[in-house]
Amino acid sequence: MSTRTSYILYIFFSCLFFSCGEQEKKDVEKPVAAEEKKSAQLQSWASKPQKEILDWLNKVTDSTSSDFIPVKDRIAVFDNDGTLWPEQPWPNQLQFAFDYIRAKKDDHPEWQKDQFLKEISEGNYSGLSKAGVPGVFKAVNASHTAMSEKEFSEAVRKWLDTATNQKFNKKYDALVYQPMLELLELLREHDFKTFIVSGGGADFMRVFTEEVYGIPPYQVIGSYGEVDFEIKDGEPVINKIEGDVYFDDKEAKPKAIHRFIGKRPVFVGGNSDGDQAMMEYASASNYNTMCVLLYHTDDDREYAYDTKTLSGHLETALEKAKEKNWLVINMKEDFLKIF
Amino acid sequence: MSTRTSYILYIFFSCLFFSCGEQEKKDVEKPVAAEEKKSAQLQSWASKPQKEILDWLNKVTDSTSSDFIPVKDRIAVFDNDGTLWPEQPWPNQLQFAFDYIRAKKDDHPEWQKDQFLKEISEGNYSGLSKAGVPGVFKAVNASHTAMSEKEFSEAVRKWLDTATNQKFNKKYDALVYQPMLELLELLREHDFKTFIVSGGGADFMRVFTEEVYGIPPYQVIGSYGEVDFEIKDGEPVINKIEGDVYFDDKEAKPKAIHRFIGKRPVFVGGNSDGDQAMMEYASASNYNTMCVLLYHTDDDREYAYDTKTLSGHLETALEKAKEKNWLVINMKEDFLKIF
Repeated sequence: MSTRTSYILYIFFSCLFFSCGEQEKKDVEKPVAAEEKKSAQLQSWASKPQKEILDWLNKVTDSTSSDFIPVKDRIAVFDNDGTLWPEQPWPNQLQFAFDYIRAKKDDHPEWQKDQFLKEISEGNYSGLSKAGVPGVFKAVNASHTAMSEKEFSEAVRKWLDTATNQKFNKKYDALVYQPMLELLELLREHDFKTFIVSGGGADFMRVFTEEVYGIPPYQVIGSYGEVDFEIKDGEPVINKIEGDVYFDDKEAKPKAIHRFIGKRPVFVGGNSDGDQAMMEYASASNYNTMCVLLYHTDDDREYAYDTKTLSGHLETALEKAKEKNWLVINMKEDFLKIF
Repeated sequence: MSTRTSYILYIFFSCLFFSCGEQEKKDVEKPVAAEEKKSAQLQSWASKPQKEILDWLNKVTDSTSSDFIPVKDRIAVFDNDGTLWPEQPWPNQLQFAFDYIRAKKDDHPEWQKDQFLKEISEGNYSGLSKAGVPGVFKAVNASHTAMSEKEFSEAVRKWLDTATNQKFNKKYDALVYQPMLELLELLREHDFKTFIVSGGGADFMRVFTEEVYGIPPYQVIGSYGEVDFEIKDGEPVINKIEGDVYFDDKEAKPKAIHRFIGKRPVFVGGNSDGDQAMMEYASASNYNTMCVLLYHTDDDREYAYDTKTLSGHLETALEKAKEKNWLVINMKEDFLKIF
């Protein structure tokens, strides 16, 4: 199966397993401000995982310890969907795709000739199941290609500034896990470079990661498609076009780490079987490494899920965590605060 | 023409245009030490380009200036071959390939059945012209694939520690341009992130860029091939395998900048037509940008070349430099010191 087909299937199944609802625009909280992103020694974590992380960090940054890791090798990678922000009822990026199609329908009369795109453009997702993979394929293409990198970034920016998560009545970039922001900051305070290695689209994530997570675009690795380069009206332009998609999940994650980072990470944060391969890759480092696996167990404050969803499916990684001594975080108990 | 074919043709023609000589191993100078890499305000540059660069830098880092560039957008990219180190008589990476085949011939009896690889394994390059593209294709495959990332890095490391450039009687990583080291350091002293964006192989460059240029692997963008991921004897391994090659030259450079950096650079250093597209891309930034184009004019201290070679061909970029006001460096006059 091609990576492109896998990607579409991923988005498709992520969608099918949940009921679809329309997003409303309301006045909601602003994104997390930079000054709120201090590590505060992981104050939003329960004491047991807090101690375990701090103990590891003290060891690997103590130059007199046999576990010392030189600054140049302090590479920390994090999954995004389900690790830094929610991924239910389906990935936020898919909601962006649907909202984009609805917002742009007047510019694309050709969408009205396609039953599925027509329904999506009206905010009606009931035909998703019937439209199947080809339908999702069309929706992703319609919202992610045939535009310049600048046009795409602006579309994502506008969406983040206006769209609202229905369950929490907040903007999407205000819904990031506070304990994970503290962890990112703590690692950087100890001279780690923090990277995202996610199945989400790199171009999508890069619009907000610098402001929200403190992670610059060149440390954001994700799925990516083809682009071309042209001089248009005297101006050089990068266009997002249809073509092969590198779907950055499972084994593709350590491969992307090789391609983009060129060093083996010593810290990994993840939440699903899709993160298992990069955790195994890191765990085989010569250094004393740490892998943190979030287990979504809190249906009141967020969501509870493991094997009943294909977006964030957690099963084999949980088994492997026992064998490899990865730190499993029970979010209901271990996160004193979610957002 | 596929990117893979382009890459092979590039290496092939780079080779054909020059006579071939055997490399000897001698006691030579060590790589440039970190403490020698200070900017020293570009003391190895002639006063005119020195002033031009310093004036630009003062403007764009002065928060009261209309040309001010915020730290987060201070992205500087540099070509490698011909910009940070020599690329004549052919790219150093190709010499590595030939030396690798000679060193490993006993492990690969199958190479002896191929006339061209047999000759290469004996240090005899006279059949290169006749072997043509398929020959170079075989040589590159033999030296860059069918091994783990670790094995490849170790092979490059060993080569850098032992091989000697014939013309200068120095190790290859001791032969880097002192003025460019000062420029890299000066930019970093002004909070720029320095990246390499080169047609050379990323995996090859990453072995030495951190020590020699102060540029970590995750800021090194180059040509790259396919890899796979496997668990071998319980250990996760990345293997370099045959497959498509992304050849990072010409239009592929701004495309790679989009893919790997996700921000438009404000400073570009290059030396050939292969760097023109990324210079045009940077020049169209909303910021006040600077592009520096090295012109190899010093046959005594280094090499003099422009249009008579395909490795480092310089013609259209020189024309474009006038139009775009890029800073052209006449190395004979403007570099007070080469290495």
